[in-house]
Amino acid sequence: MSIWEENVRKVVPYTPGEQPDFPDMIKLNTNENPYPPSPLVEKALKEMDADALRLYPAPAADALVEGLAAVYHVKKEQVFVGVGSDDVLAMAFLTFFNSDKPILFPNITYSFYDVWADLFRIPYEQIPLNEEFAIVPEDYMKENGGIIFPNPNAPTGVEMPFEEVERIIAHNPESVVIIDEAYVDFGAASVLPLIEKYENLLVVQTTSKSRSMAGMRIGFAFGSEKMIHYLNDAKYSFNSYTMNRPSLILGSAAIQDEAYFRETTAKIVTVREWTKKELKRLGFSFPDSKTNFIFATHEHVPAKELFEALKKQHIFVRYFNKPGIDNYLRITIGTEEQMKKLIAFLEQYL
Amino acid sequence: MSIWEENVRKVVPYTPGEQPDFPDMIKLNTNENPYPPSPLVEKALKEMDADALRLYPAPAADALVEGLAAVYHVKKEQVFVGVGSDDVLAMAFLTFFNSDKPILFPNITYSFYDVWADLFRIPYEQIPLNEEFAIVPEDYMKENGGIIFPNPNAPTGVEMPFEEVERIIAHNPESVVIIDEAYVDFGAASVLPLIEKYENLLVVQTTSKSRSMAGMRIGFAFGSEKMIHYLNDAKYSFNSYTMNRPSLILGSAAIQDEAYFRETTAKIVTVREWTKKELKRLGFSFPDSKTNFIFATHEHVPAKELFEALKKQHIFVRYFNKPGIDNYLRITIGTEEQMKKLIAFLEQYL
Repeated sequence: MSIWEENVRKVVPYTPGEQPDFPDMIKLNTNENPYPPSPLVEKALKEMDADALRLYPAPAADALVEGLAAVYHVKKEQVFVGVGSDDVLAMAFLTFFNSDKPILFPNITYSFYDVWADLFRIPYEQIPLNEEFAIVPEDYMKENGGIIFPNPNAPTGVEMPFEEVERIIAHNPESVVIIDEAYVDFGAASVLPLIEKYENLLVVQTTSKSRSMAGMRIGFAFGSEKMIHYLNDAKYSFNSYTMNRPSLILGSAAIQDEAYFRETTAKIVTVREWTKKELKRLGFSFPDSKTNFIFATHEHVPAKELFEALKKQHIFVRYFNKPGIDNYLRITIGTEEQMKKLIAFLEQYL
Repeated sequence: MSIWEENVRKVVPYTPGEQPDFPDMIKLNTNENPYPPSPLVEKALKEMDADALRLYPAPAADALVEGLAAVYHVKKEQVFVGVGSDDVLAMAFLTFFNSDKPILFPNITYSFYDVWADLFRIPYEQIPLNEEFAIVPEDYMKENGGIIFPNPNAPTGVEMPFEEVERIIAHNPESVVIIDEAYVDFGAASVLPLIEKYENLLVVQTTSKSRSMAGMRIGFAFGSEKMIHYLNDAKYSFNSYTMNRPSLILGSAAIQDEAYFRETTAKIVTVREWTKKELKRLGFSFPDSKTNFIFATHEHVPAKELFEALKKQHIFVRYFNKPGIDNYLRITIGTEEQMKKLIAFLEQYL
C-alpha cells in the first residue's frame, strides 16, 4: 500500500440493489412505484427551458421548499431538502450524531444506517426486533447519542403506532430522534405534527415511493426551525447547490398533485391487501405491512429458491442474504396485473 | 442551549453568491456561461420520458461515466461523477484528507476549501500567493496531509504552467494532490494526462462553466483506478444514487457536442481578450486570466464603489469583502454585447 493510501477513509461500501433491465420484466425489487409520476410532472418536463440550465439553481431550493411547506402546512423554515432521502439522512447523521455515546437503531432495518455510522465514525448499537419483527419502544429508552428508525420499518413493513413513537421521542429530549418515513404514505401515521412539540425531532420523507419519483432523487425533512437551520448550515458547507433545476421544477410539480397522489397510493394499498390474501392462501406468512412492499416467508419453500425461480421468469424481488431474514423475500407492490402474474407463477410453482 | 444541541456539528456556513433575478440584468457575478447548453441538450430534454422517472437511476451513472471516458480518452474506471464539482470535491476531502498533518491550499482561492476542511475537521494551512497573485510551487514542497488548488486559480484567473503543476505532484508522492480544473477549458492546460503517471493525482472538472450546465450540477473527476475506487466506496456509503435521471441524460448529451463546446469556449476567450484591452484602456489592472472571468482593480476608483454603481444598473459582478482582495472585482465574461454594455457604462462612470 502506498503512503498516500494510509490516509484514505476506508469503508465497506453499500451495495445498491440490482437494477435489472429487461423489456418484459416485472420489477418488484426496489420499492418503486408502478405508476408514472403525476401528469403535472410530464407537463412541467415538456415546458422546461433548456437555456436556463446555464444558470445556477436557487441554492435554498425555494420553489420546492415553499411548495412542501404549503402542501404539508408547515413553515418553510421547518423544511430541508436533499438528493433523495439518503442525502437528507446522511447530512442528518453528519450534523446531529456527534456524541461519544452510541446512536441506536434496529438490527433489522434500512441497510444504510450502519454504513453512514461507519463512514462518519459514529458509535452505534443495533437493537434486535422482537419475534414479530416489531421495534420495542422500551429498548430506546436508555442512554444514547441519537435515535433513528424507519416507520414503517424496512424491510419488514411493520408500523409502530403513533403513540409509541411519541413515547420514544418524549423519553429522549437530550438526543436527536430521526423518524425515517420513506413509506409512510401507504397507510401509516406520520409523526409530522409532533415537530411543533419536540424541537429535537426530525421527520424524513421522500418523493421516491409515493410520488413515483425515484429517478429524480428528491428527499425532504421536517423539523424545528432550529434543527433545520443546523442541517442547512452543514449542507451549505458540503454543497450549496444540491438540487438541480429539473429537481426543483419537477419536484414542485409532483407534490402539487394531491388528487393523483391519493389515487395512486390508494390503488397500491388495495393491490397490497389483495396480494396479502393471495400470499396467505399460498402458504406465505408475513408481518402486516403498511408500506408498498410485503416481507414474506413461505412455510415450505426456502426464500432463496423462490427468488431464483422468480428471477428466471424475469420477476425480480429482493432477497437479503443476512442472518435472521434470509428466509424472507421483500416483494414490492406493483400494478394489479403484475401482482396477478406473480401470484399465478407462485401458484403454479408451489 | 438544549442538551441535544451540544452534539450538533457546528460550522460557519458558506454563503452562496447572490443570485439576482431581473429581466434586464447583465449577470456577470457567478461565472456562468452566457450561451445556452448545446442543442443536443435541448433535444434530449424534449425527448425525455416522464414515466421513467418512477425508476431509480443507474447508481454507477453508467451513461455519463462512459460518455466522459470516451470523450476524455480514459477508462471508465478512472472517472468519478458528482452533483457539481462541489460534491466531487467534498467527497474527495472526506475520502483522501484524513492525515493529522495539515492539507495545503492558497490563502486566496476557491472559498469552499476551508469550509470543507472545517466541516470534516481536517487541519489545514493557507499559503499566501505571491505579489502577482501566483501560487509558488516551492511552498507546496513541505510536509503535508494533502494538497489542493484550482488551476487556473479562482478568483484570480491565474494559470500555473503544466510543468510547475507536475513539479508539485512529483514532489508529493505521499499525499493526494487534487487539481481543481473548473476553469481549465478557457485556454489553460489540463494535467489530465498525468493521471497515468501519478496514482495520487485527482483532476476535477465540471460541466457548469464550459458546458453551460451550472443548473444541472454535474461535476467529474479523473484519477487512477485505485483513487476512483476509494472515492466510489465513500460515495456509495454516502448516497448511492446521486445523479438523477435528467443529469445522466442531459449530462451525456452536453459532453458529446465537441463542436459546440469548442465554438462557445472560443467565443468566450475572444470576448475575454477584448475585455482585457478595454479594461486596461480604462485604467484597470488584473492578473492575466485564462478563465471565463477577469479579476480587476482600478487605479483610482475603489472596487466597492464600482460594484455598487454597476449593481444600480443591474450589472452584477462579484465583490469579495476580504483582506487582500477587497479592491478587486471578479467580472464574468458574458456575451460580446453584454461586455460592450459593461465597458460603455464604466467609460461613462469613470
